[in-house]
Amino acid sequence: MKKVDVLIIGGGASGLSAAISSKSNYPDKSVAVVRKEKQVLVPCGIPYIFGSLNSSDRNVMPDQGMLDLGVEIIIDEVDIVDIEGHTADLVKGGKIEFEKVIFATGSIPTKPKWLKGADLENVFTIPKNKIYLDEMHDQLKGLKKIITIGAGFIGVEMSDEMNKEGWDVTLVELEPTILSRAFDKEFGDKAEELLVKRGVKVITGKGVKEIIGTDGKVSSVILTSGEEIEADAVILSMGYAPNTALAEKSGLELNKFGFIKTCEYMRVENCSSDIFAVGDCAEKRDFLTRRLSTTMLASTACAEARVAGMNLYELSPCKVFGGTIAIYNTAIGDSAFGTAGITEERARQDNFDVVVGSFTGIDKHPRTLEGTHEQTVKLIVAGDCGMIIGGEVFGGISIGELTNTLGFLIQNHVNVKTLLTAQIGTHPMLTGSPAAYPLIKAAEIVAKKLKCRS
Amino acid sequence: MKKVDVLIIGGGASGLSAAISSKSNYPDKSVAVVRKEKQVLVPCGIPYIFGSLNSSDRNVMPDQGMLDLGVEIIIDEVDIVDIEGHTADLVKGGKIEFEKVIFATGSIPTKPKWLKGADLENVFTIPKNKIYLDEMHDQLKGLKKIITIGAGFIGVEMSDEMNKEGWDVTLVELEPTILSRAFDKEFGDKAEELLVKRGVKVITGKGVKEIIGTDGKVSSVILTSGEEIEADAVILSMGYAPNTALAEKSGLELNKFGFIKTCEYMRVENCSSDIFAVGDCAEKRDFLTRRLSTTMLASTACAEARVAGMNLYELSPCKVFGGTIAIYNTAIGDSAFGTAGITEERARQDNFDVVVGSFTGIDKHPRTLEGTHEQTVKLIVAGDCGMIIGGEVFGGISIGELTNTLGFLIQNHVNVKTLLTAQIGTHPMLTGSPAAYPLIKAAEIVAKKLKCRS
Repeated sequence: MKKVDVLIIGGGASGLSAAISSKSNYPDKSVAVVRKEKQVLVPCGIPYIFGSLNSSDRNVMPDQGMLDLGVEIIIDEVDIVDIEGHTADLVKGGKIEFEKVIFATGSIPTKPKWLKGADLENVFTIPKNKIYLDEMHDQLKGLKKIITIGAGFIGVEMSDEMNKEGWDVTLVELEPTILSRAFDKEFGDKAEELLVKRGVKVITGKGVKEIIGTDGKVSSVILTSGEEIEADAVILSMGYAPNTALAEKSGLELNKFGFIKTCEYMRVENCSSDIFAVGDCAEKRDFLTRRLSTTMLASTACAEARVAGMNLYELSPCKVFGGTIAIYNTAIGDSAFGTAGITEERARQDNFDVVVGSFTGIDKHPRTLEGTHEQTVKLIVAGDCGMIIGGEVFGGISIGELTNTLGFLIQNHVNVKTLLTAQIGTHPMLTGSPAAYPLIKAAEIVAKKLKCRS
Repeated sequence: MKKVDVLIIGGGASGLSAAISSKSNYPDKSVAVVRKEKQVLVPCGIPYIFGSLNSSDRNVMPDQGMLDLGVEIIIDEVDIVDIEGHTADLVKGGKIEFEKVIFATGSIPTKPKWLKGADLENVFTIPKNKIYLDEMHDQLKGLKKIITIGAGFIGVEMSDEMNKEGWDVTLVELEPTILSRAFDKEFGDKAEELLVKRGVKVITGKGVKEIIGTDGKVSSVILTSGEEIEADAVILSMGYAPNTALAEKSGLELNKFGFIKTCEYMRVENCSSDIFAVGDCAEKRDFLTRRLSTTMLASTACAEARVAGMNLYELSPCKVFGGTIAIYNTAIGDSAFGTAGITEERARQDNFDVVVGSFTGIDKHPRTLEGTHEQTVKLIVAGDCGMIIGGEVFGGISIGELTNTLGFLIQNHVNVKTLLTAQIGTHPMLTGSPAAYPLIKAAEIVAKKLKCRS
């Protein structure tokens, strides 16, 4: 029987990161990744296959980092894991004995059972599967009218990219605003305005009721309002579910949302300390609300994978995964949106006493410089203690890193008052001006409100 | 006699920020700014007047923010301040009585007395003075060969911008690498390589000995090596000195570098609690070495100005200026460099036991995306405790905000180990990949070295 010290099941972002982290932290251990796909896609790059990249071949995660470290890649699938016996059966036959196993089986797109017509030809989902997406891309090339259902990040980015390539795209969202899980209304409205300006038709406050077919192919979509819209293809971006069939079959315990129950070291609950789960398939809690979270992000998955890798053979209490902050960004043309922590609306729903402040400035200075973009920072701060618990930004492409600044402030429990005296670096070509840096100005607005309350 | 509650002397970045902070924190107090100039330049934008902006009119700081708050602007100059009597004499005549005064008199470019030929026609410095710079710009338009002396930020940016506009530019620096006060050698070398590629001639390891004139105008420069280089004009970017003539005349105590001695609330030492100084004229200490610092930055000046404004009438122990972190950036074409805290070289010179780690990745992902730029992050970490004390970055324009992330990590005394489990947000168009985000990877390298030592 083949033996390996650390077996990683799944080769997506979390599997790759887990492999690198395991091998880097324990170079004397042998590490193997079992994955189905010969080539693995960069998950966040998938919408760009249909536009800016124009081919999935340009969106492949390189294996070289793993191979250079000496990680073995096995193209196969695990049929079942014997948790007690520390072995895994492979689909192609054979068995692997392991000391430690990391489940990194990812997620699969949701296709609601109640949705009539979901199995018609030209109804697509967006799995992280190169072969599926290549076929889909080919099929879409002959079609014109596209309806995207669900305006989360994937739906928004798919719609924008396909619109850019000349498809006639309608984006349908049941919630009153797009991107509503990640952003407060004012940011969602801004994103909608940009999408519409760029040519995407956006319908909010209405869901899909049924997909209608002619000769087995999509011909239209009926909305919850009763309207019927012609369509050649429908793209369902209605969320993802943890891919935990293998875990379930192998006897691991799932939480009520279907995620593998894990602790803060990413060890699977009620198992020996040799069984780990990371990424989209693993249970997460919200950093702030401490509720179970269903937000799946490649960046969060990689952080969890690092935690598992570090704690495989030696636990460290300062290397735990403290709950998901849900830091993410999206771009629409030259504009971009970022969010970290909790939105104002979600904070209020969850009974946080919050004080918020927004400031709009610019991302270069003076504003006469070519390419200067408006930049808005909104801070969501705990009213009783001043801790920063959320932030949202709108701006040019530099807001990706600015969002990470917000993420670090939240993760380090930074008090908004420290921003009042904080030093920043500024440069005409790279940031707003030192006298009107939106993050600091937003903090000043919050601090003033806090003072008025005290 | 005119009376004002808060008098601010100087209208540059620090004066403007001090005025806004004073009036925002104490809206019932009257605030006036006395400044010489009708129009004030954005300080960091000055090199761009000679290139990208092509006119100083496009680089003016708007007064509207101050005026909207009700700050009075007085175009005049203060001749002397009676510190005990709480009055200021104006040059145009008249006196102002004040409760509080903030010195924000800035800095002036250094023109070394030992430099023969420094007073020839077509020898320029870079003061923050619109009238001077407009005349200089006009004069330069008729000239061809420019020698810039001193490769700090101003020298580098002036050289790059003027080269872009068609001038024949030679940049001369006494140190072996350019930008050596802010960056370690590997970053300085990279910057030099870029400048040279763009057409700037760079001479390092040689200083200027003498400027030679013909008919009273610059004709060449003799270097310390004896070489003579033809020149139509010389730009001295050899640093700035605090503008403290008024402070000295008014009896304030200066430190050995000529800065007004201040405490962490920006109150002037050995004075009543009504006298403040901020910005380039005010004493600073290095956040890490605790030594007196001579680094002058508009962004640091604005932070000090906020501290003074907040503490004018009411001290808060959590709103102090804790020492300069010296966070700054510069751009050369589409590439940019950022630094925060201490460099490796300076840390070692100052007897810090440091461990460093560098990682080079990309700033979008996958790397096939158009406009993807290499991104390098170097972390400088205290070897005994893991505290992050410095960071340097090279990349595209998003590194401005990334540098601020480094700044916040340093200011909040964050341990490098927290980066191992840190969550980040990533997006194809905006950041590196979650599996190879340079900041996290650099932290992993440092953590590994720390572990090997323990």
